[in-house]
Parts: sequence; C-alpha cells; structure tokens
Amino acid sequence: MEKHLDFHELMNLPARYRGTLINKIAGYKTANLIGTRSGSGMENLALFNSVVHIGANPPYLGFVLRPTTVERHTYKNLRDTGQFTINQVAASFHREAHQSSGKYPLEVSEFKACGLTPHYVQGFSAPFVAESRIKIGLSFEEEHLVNCNQTRLVVGKVEHLILPEEGVKADGDVDLEALNTVAIGGLDTYYTGKKLGRYGYYRPGDEVREID
Amino acid sequence: MEKHLDFHELMNLPARYRGTLINKIAGYKTANLIGTRSGSGMENLALFNSVVHIGANPPYLGFVLRPTTVERHTYKNLRDTGQFTINQVAASFHREAHQSSGKYPLEVSEFKACGLTPHYVQGFSAPFVAESRIKIGLSFEEEHLVNCNQTRLVVGKVEHLILPEEGVKADGDVDLEALNTVAIGGLDTYYTGKKLGRYGYYRPGDEVREID
Repeated sequence: MEKHLDFHELMNLPARYRGTLINKIAGYKTANLIGTRSGSGMENLALFNSVVHIGANPPYLGFVLRPTTVERHTYKNLRDTGQFTINQVAASFHREAHQSSGKYPLEVSEFKACGLTPHYVQGFSAPFVAESRIKIGLSFEEEHLVNCNQTRLVVGKVEHLILPEEGVKADGDVDLEALNTVAIGGLDTYYTGKKLGRYGYYRPGDEVREID
Repeated sequence: MEKHLDFHELMNLPARYRGTLINKIAGYKTANLIGTRSGSGMENLALFNSVVHIGANPPYLGFVLRPTTVERHTYKNLRDTGQFTINQVAASFHREAHQSSGKYPLEVSEFKACGLTPHYVQGFSAPFVAESRIKIGLSFEEEHLVNCNQTRLVVGKVEHLILPEEGVKADGDVDLEALNTVAIGGLDTYYTGKKLGRYGYYRPGDEVREID
C-alpha cells in the first residue's frame, strides 16, 4: 500500500514524526565532521549530513547550516576565522561522531568530549580530525541565507586535501567502501556502503558500461 | 601513506582526475531522479546527487544545479512551471537511472529513453517516477546563485509525499536499507547501504544509546 500525504497532511503530523520522516526521504547522506576554532583558540567539532559538491575547477564544497544552537559555534568560528575543515566519518568512529551532535557549551571541545583527536596543518588554523581518512581544509568563500526558513548554504574553497595514498586510484577515483566511509539516514542512522557498480559516462543509445 | 594536496597542487592535476577526485571526497551522496515537464508538455528526467534537507517545518528540500547542458532542461522547466519531483533511486533501477545522466536533446523524454515510467498526481503537472518507492512533489520556493562558479541552490516546498506504508515506522523513521535505496559516490558509483545502527538524540555525558 502507498501512503500519500499532501502539504496540509504533512503539516498536521506531530512535529517529531514529521521531522524524522522528512529528514529521511532524500536518501543516504554524506556524514562529515566540521572542525573550526574560535578566535580565542577554542576547538569545535560538529556532525553534518549536508555537505554537497559545488565544483571541481576550482574545487569548492558547500554545506547547509540550520538555525540551531549546536551549529552556531561552527558558523561563528568559520566567519570569524575564515577557515573550517570537513572530515569524513568512517565506521570505526561513527559512535564518537554521533556524540558530536549533542549540545555542548562553547567552552567544551567536542574533540575531547567525543574522544577524537585534533590534527593541525601548518599555516591553517582550523583543526582536522586525525581519525578521518579524508580530511579537507577550506577557506570561507560565500554564504546564502535561505529566506523561507533561515538556513544557510556555506561555500568553501578546498585549500588542503589529505587522504590515504592507497585510497585513490590512477584516475582519481576514491573507493569509499574500502575506506569504511559511512552514510547517514536522517540524523540518527548510520550505514556502510556495498558497491553495486561503477559505470562509465553514459552516451544515449549505448549500453550501460561497467568500469573498474 | 597519506597524500596531502594543497590548492595549487589540486589545480595542477589533470581536469578529469581532479573532477573524479573532488566529486568523491564528500562521501556517499543522495541518489535522486528529478522530474519536470516543459510548458509544452515535454517530460524531462535527470539524475542528481545533491539533494539536501532544508527544513521539516514546513517541509523543504533543496538541490544544487550545476551550470551544464544536461541540467538546463530541469532548471528551465521548473522555473517555467514552478513544479518538480524528487524520486529516490533504488537498486532495482539504478542502471536506468544512470542512463538519465547522459545528454539527450530537449525533444527526447528521458523516461522513455531510460525505460522508466512517468506517474502523475491529479492537479500536479510534474511527472513522478513510478518505479521509485519514495516520490516527492515540490513547488519552487527560491533559488540562490553561487557566485564563485555559477551553480545554483534550488529550494522547493514539499507538496506531495508518496511512499510505501510498510516503509514508515511508528515514529516516522524510514528504513532505507529495506527499500533498497542507493547512494552515489561521485557521479559514477552506486552503493546499497548496510545499517550499522540507529542512535537516540545524544546528550553529553550519556552513553550512545541504540534505538530501533
């Protein structure tokens, strides 16, 4: 049986039910820890499921920041310092990563509270997560305030990319399954991936061509 | 061994290598087909890996549109008609979905070319994908042009949500693994998910609490 809910039926659902439901319907999401440091040197780390690809030439990534308390530290720090890091969550520390989604006071470093290790790169102020296999350092590029609900799209330029030599193939491909990268469903469910196939650029009329 | 590339080293990589690499580093992404119809009634379908959650109250989703030929039909149609659909890709038709990433002339319906079935809801002009277990109809809400590379964030309000009754739990949770939802790595690799765990809202000082 199919369930069909229109806008008004969605709005009449209990708020928590609707929140859980709407957060899941887009499918598997990116799981990344965003690291920042305040002007006074306090480290901050927060889990985000909204990192998106903006461009490769030059390399830009973005993420959506919701107007909630947890994420304000991330926003304030990255605007104050102009720098942030995006660190991929792997299965081995996904429970620690989940802990960073809690609300901590400003004076608490989520690195320490969650048992994760800050890692620094010379000349870059924001902390990376040592446990992450893929670590990305970005400089703030621009932001866009979404008018309908005051969320923000934040865009950064990739200044540093650190990843395992053996994780990158000759053509630039990254084997997410081998790195034990996790995906998130909504805000609460974590998954590993199992590869179905990698396919070449599709030209209409051709067969779908599997590649390595 | 870790590989560390700074901005200038990234810019010196061959363009295709850099494109493949940068598209993969954020991790597993949402896999959705976006359906639109032109003012003259021509159906269009295109694969996107950039759908993000914008809000649940009211329900909004967004996606990033790159300034390329494939996606211009989607953009033109949704601006002309104010409507679009987001349809979750499942393992059973991920090869058909991949075909929609090819470049088709405007007069070709990707539904027909890829072997997918358009589905209509009364009073809503944009086509849904019948094969998708989760189908979302949206009205255009707002857009933001990203200045650094002319990509766009498009935001829509959820007007219709169609999903299998048995796929939704009592608290609004959706079991993506049971629905055979797929994730995408970059633009070319498809994965199914295997659940590690679902965890309750985390309160600092508590243990991470597994929930059903």
